[in-house]
Amino acid sequence: MKGKVTTNIAMQLTRAKAFAPASVANVAVGFDLLGFSADVAGDTAVVEKIDEPQVVVGEVTGLMTSLPLSPLENTATAGLVRLVRDRKLNFGFRVSIQKGIPLGSGLGGSAASAVAAIVAANELLEARLTLNEMLSYALIGEGVASGSFHADNVAPSLFGGLTLAAMNETAPNELPTVTVSELPIPEGLWCVLLHPNQRLDTKQARGILKPHLQLNSHIEASANLALFMTALFTSDFDLIRRSLRDDVIEPQRAHLIDGFYEYQKAAYDANALGCTISGAGPALFAWARGEAHAIAVKTSMLQATSGLARAWAFELKRSGARVVS
Amino acid sequence: MKGKVTTNIAMQLTRAKAFAPASVANVAVGFDLLGFSADVAGDTAVVEKIDEPQVVVGEVTGLMTSLPLSPLENTATAGLVRLVRDRKLNFGFRVSIQKGIPLGSGLGGSAASAVAAIVAANELLEARLTLNEMLSYALIGEGVASGSFHADNVAPSLFGGLTLAAMNETAPNELPTVTVSELPIPEGLWCVLLHPNQRLDTKQARGILKPHLQLNSHIEASANLALFMTALFTSDFDLIRRSLRDDVIEPQRAHLIDGFYEYQKAAYDANALGCTISGAGPALFAWARGEAHAIAVKTSMLQATSGLARAWAFELKRSGARVVS
Repeated sequence: MKGKVTTNIAMQLTRAKAFAPASVANVAVGFDLLGFSADVAGDTAVVEKIDEPQVVVGEVTGLMTSLPLSPLENTATAGLVRLVRDRKLNFGFRVSIQKGIPLGSGLGGSAASAVAAIVAANELLEARLTLNEMLSYALIGEGVASGSFHADNVAPSLFGGLTLAAMNETAPNELPTVTVSELPIPEGLWCVLLHPNQRLDTKQARGILKPHLQLNSHIEASANLALFMTALFTSDFDLIRRSLRDDVIEPQRAHLIDGFYEYQKAAYDANALGCTISGAGPALFAWARGEAHAIAVKTSMLQATSGLARAWAFELKRSGARVVS
Repeated sequence: MKGKVTTNIAMQLTRAKAFAPASVANVAVGFDLLGFSADVAGDTAVVEKIDEPQVVVGEVTGLMTSLPLSPLENTATAGLVRLVRDRKLNFGFRVSIQKGIPLGSGLGGSAASAVAAIVAANELLEARLTLNEMLSYALIGEGVASGSFHADNVAPSLFGGLTLAAMNETAPNELPTVTVSELPIPEGLWCVLLHPNQRLDTKQARGILKPHLQLNSHIEASANLALFMTALFTSDFDLIRRSLRDDVIEPQRAHLIDGFYEYQKAAYDANALGCTISGAGPALFAWARGEAHAIAVKTSMLQATSGLARAWAFELKRSGARVVS
């Protein structure tokens, strides 16, 4: 009976608003797989029901330069276009976005827009989507932005916390699906995020990657990944320090980020547990143990930028996307 | 005081015997890194003190064809040669080996000999080695056999159970050291081992591997590794089934093993959680849930070989090397 009541209320709703946080993808050892939410910034989507079964891009405000107006090319709406089709809805959506995450920052901006839009749209559905279904639709939007399907930003932005998101094998026309594991967060784990005053195109940062790697590099990267996973499940900060490093992608992308090695060195000078690129960059993240340590790392990194960057220090938490009205 | 007493007894010992179990390396997702002990077969070493500070290869019996008599080239003794030198011992060792693991089986025979020898020799030392030091010395012996240092057989044979063994960075002349994590074993996890009537040279099986892999393969393999680690820590058998697969090494080595795909298919016909090559082969391992399931998998695999193989079914346990007299 409770479900019926909820359904009736949902049917009356014509407008919903949702917030989705920024996120840090790759996390040094899990390229395209690992990510964690960074609830210090985020995008907000307002989705309104419209009579026609189509999706319209509404207002876009905030930290934006330009955004595609075609709903199929727009990160926030491409998933909703698919949703309208899959569900054979007799109504559509008008989607407005308030960007709190700069594009091309490496902080999961396109994923956050896609997640916020689907979370808000879901409020307007008679039969709600599961979290995993929302993930699939958000992924379609994210695919528009990055040119390939990987849920390393979408999953943490939606679920919150630290997630492992592995693509399942699906036929080309099927909705992409993901196996998501919500990973444990050792108590007292803090993150420092540094966003240098620079913009990097995600597709460019992906395009420069070599299509292959040495078997030895694969083995070393696998060792670090397995040690890192063990560290999370056993709250072993020494093992985080031993394993939180990226010798595969970082060396290929570091030159795209002005001052990368200076900022990274500044993090290690302050004894960071690890420090590398956030997503495709140019943002960097570092991990620290406890607030005081995080603030010391943040201060050291900010000094290295001569103040030409924004920085945050925050405790890792399981805070993901949510409906805000 | 207790330590002192032990030391006195140790000084009186002139002969010690130790057993080290077989092991399954790689475990589909952790090439060169993961391994588990298979305490259904093993090697036994008898180490005797001799007056000269040197190492002598004594009798070799059991499942052997030939073994190098030079102590530096012999798996079981190369680590002891280094030990005598490092410790500046004023005595040496005579090492006899009873091989219970056929060479070139993919069941960690050379590692077991090296482990059994160092565990027995350790009993004759005034100042005992730590487990990690024993691992380092056993690794030197294993390095002789495989041509490179990786502890994926040595670690499980010594520690028992399922281990993650990552090589640390050390200078070329330093004793190699390893970061070992003893991984949790989900309750009711069983293994089926199949040893076809064939011998494979480890160096050959390594030599055919391509020196690089596609970035996409690396990402998929990393996804499986991370899911597998999660599965172990959360006892999630569905996730073991999802992740226990090797799309990097198996396709390159399968053709070296007569009937590999038939045996693997037989395992999956019996609903195995996963099935691939054990170490460098030709042995295969499959995982199953519970004894009845393991026996069904074993029966199916044995039928596919027309009986031309040995097979075991056993529960995964934390049983490693031990002194036996």
